[in-house]
Amino acid sequence: MESAIGVLVSQFKAYAGSDGSSDTLSRDEFHRLVSSELPNFVKNASDPTAIEQLMSSLDKNNDGELNFLEFWQLIGHLASEHGGFSQ
Amino acid sequence: MESAIGVLVSQFKAYAGSDGSSDTLSRDEFHRLVSSELPNFVKNASDPTAIEQLMSSLDKNNDGELNFLEFWQLIGHLASEHGGFSQ
Repeated sequence: MESAIGVLVSQFKAYAGSDGSSDTLSRDEFHRLVSSELPNFVKNASDPTAIEQLMSSLDKNNDGELNFLEFWQLIGHLASEHGGFSQ
Repeated sequence: MESAIGVLVSQFKAYAGSDGSSDTLSRDEFHRLVSSELPNFVKNASDPTAIEQLMSSLDKNNDGELNFLEFWQLIGHLASEHGGFSQ
């Protein structure tokens, strides 16, 4: 379990580090991460409009950047759907 | 990334399924999961009192069971610490 958590942290950092703040995902970084890493878990992962809406729904402070815990909320909901848990 | 998420879901289910509700972690299941799967990420993972306090802090509806999203909050904070992100 710790190694799986480590993978998620490393992959977040790899995308977050490509431009601007290395600890947050910009809109471009988020688009790239979703289309490359979550193509099956996110509906319409290749549709820019859908991803834009998803980003806005997660970016609570509306600064155009997702921090790690904002991103973690997304993958928690994806994981919960994937696991078939009731919300 | 999807495979790492799948691992976390599968491991949660493996522990959650050992008694009672198969979708939630009882106190015993949570103790076993933390001591076996998160021995490095959780401080005092083998101390029953510490684990009991951690469980209480996560169990928002105080029913003695952790559902998947309650559990997800814990590993998000562990992952954030592991990754060195500011909170």
